[in-house]
Amino acid sequence: MLTLYIGNKNYSSWSMRPWVLMRQAGIPFEEVQLRFDSFAPDSNFKQRLQAVSAAGKVPVLVEEGLSIWDSLAIAEYLAEKFPEKHLWPQQGPQRARARSMVAEMHSGFTTLRSLCPMNIEARLPEVGARLWADNPGLREDVQRLEVLWTPLLTQGKGPMLFEQFSIVDAFFAPVCMRLITYALPIPPLVQSYVQRVRNLPAVQEWVQAALAEHDFRPFEEPYRSAPAN
Amino acid sequence: MLTLYIGNKNYSSWSMRPWVLMRQAGIPFEEVQLRFDSFAPDSNFKQRLQAVSAAGKVPVLVEEGLSIWDSLAIAEYLAEKFPEKHLWPQQGPQRARARSMVAEMHSGFTTLRSLCPMNIEARLPEVGARLWADNPGLREDVQRLEVLWTPLLTQGKGPMLFEQFSIVDAFFAPVCMRLITYALPIPPLVQSYVQRVRNLPAVQEWVQAALAEHDFRPFEEPYRSAPAN
Repeated sequence: MLTLYIGNKNYSSWSMRPWVLMRQAGIPFEEVQLRFDSFAPDSNFKQRLQAVSAAGKVPVLVEEGLSIWDSLAIAEYLAEKFPEKHLWPQQGPQRARARSMVAEMHSGFTTLRSLCPMNIEARLPEVGARLWADNPGLREDVQRLEVLWTPLLTQGKGPMLFEQFSIVDAFFAPVCMRLITYALPIPPLVQSYVQRVRNLPAVQEWVQAALAEHDFRPFEEPYRSAPAN
Repeated sequence: MLTLYIGNKNYSSWSMRPWVLMRQAGIPFEEVQLRFDSFAPDSNFKQRLQAVSAAGKVPVLVEEGLSIWDSLAIAEYLAEKFPEKHLWPQQGPQRARARSMVAEMHSGFTTLRSLCPMNIEARLPEVGARLWADNPGLREDVQRLEVLWTPLLTQGKGPMLFEQFSIVDAFFAPVCMRLITYALPIPPLVQSYVQRVRNLPAVQEWVQAALAEHDFRPFEEPYRSAPAN
């Protein structure tokens, strides 16, 4: 049995990736949610996580005593374990391109990630407009997304970046959430893809759960002092 | 034919990883070195790189028109292309653990990476001692390396982290260079591993080439105003 440890669905972008991947691909798993109380060593979050991962971060995938403590390593593990699910594109060159994109997401887009933290329940278009105007690095990160996605959306058969849903779409799902929350300006082609990701059944399910959390965490909220309602 | 685009051997830690991986594993490739003149859009470095990668970073592996523009994606591509080289550990659970470590290196250790940039020809023990005293985050990053490595070095059959040389050792090779340059305090068991990595034939070859570069780049030198000699 696979057990996936995740954080808050409203905030934890890294947790969202393997959760959406497994749910959308129809891979059964048990979910253990560790709510973010704080990230101090004596927090409930860190103490409970310590039992499965010394790295102290979510997500963690556990199977029979084996802990896999990074989202990308989890994706590769699942791709090997369920070859019939075709979690990576089947063609070698497409798979290499997909892995480059996922690895770039994994280590990069730092300005977008730091200035626009995932916050599914929030609507922050004014904040987004100000950040967009003030931060060339943010505009460069979004432009880079467009450079990556546009040829695939133009030449590909869709609806996802490599036709069928794959690890790539799961890895960009939290970015799509950010683009929506902060209403960052993107061309219609990219906007359509963002909406298709938003409408994936697994993403809808994640978003519904995020909206039901009602767990406002000030340390995850650089732009709000209280929840919307 | 595989062509690997890399930056300066003295400075480019990301370039070092796939280069050492391929050389140590005996995978033939052509090397194209793009020296760092600057990272401005009109630099020679960026202009030449643009022809093979819009991401604008090294390393890039090119094979018959296919560009793979991230070190981890390159490693996965090579592991698939050369299964007989066993670039990942062969046992599934070991492989999952190896991938978690490599992915953590890929996205983490940010304090160590930013405060102690790779600089193979430099010897900066005083700088290292000061950084060590002043930065808890640096001490935490090195302690995390110890937590990752120690059980493998204690229980494993060695000489590398997963017995034989693998992608994991290639990914940690630049970290070993940093530990040497800044003389950061590490226990003897870890020190022995660092030396074994340093003594790998491929690492020796890389280091010799780095020492022969004589290409002092002020924007890569937070702690020196001129080369040692």
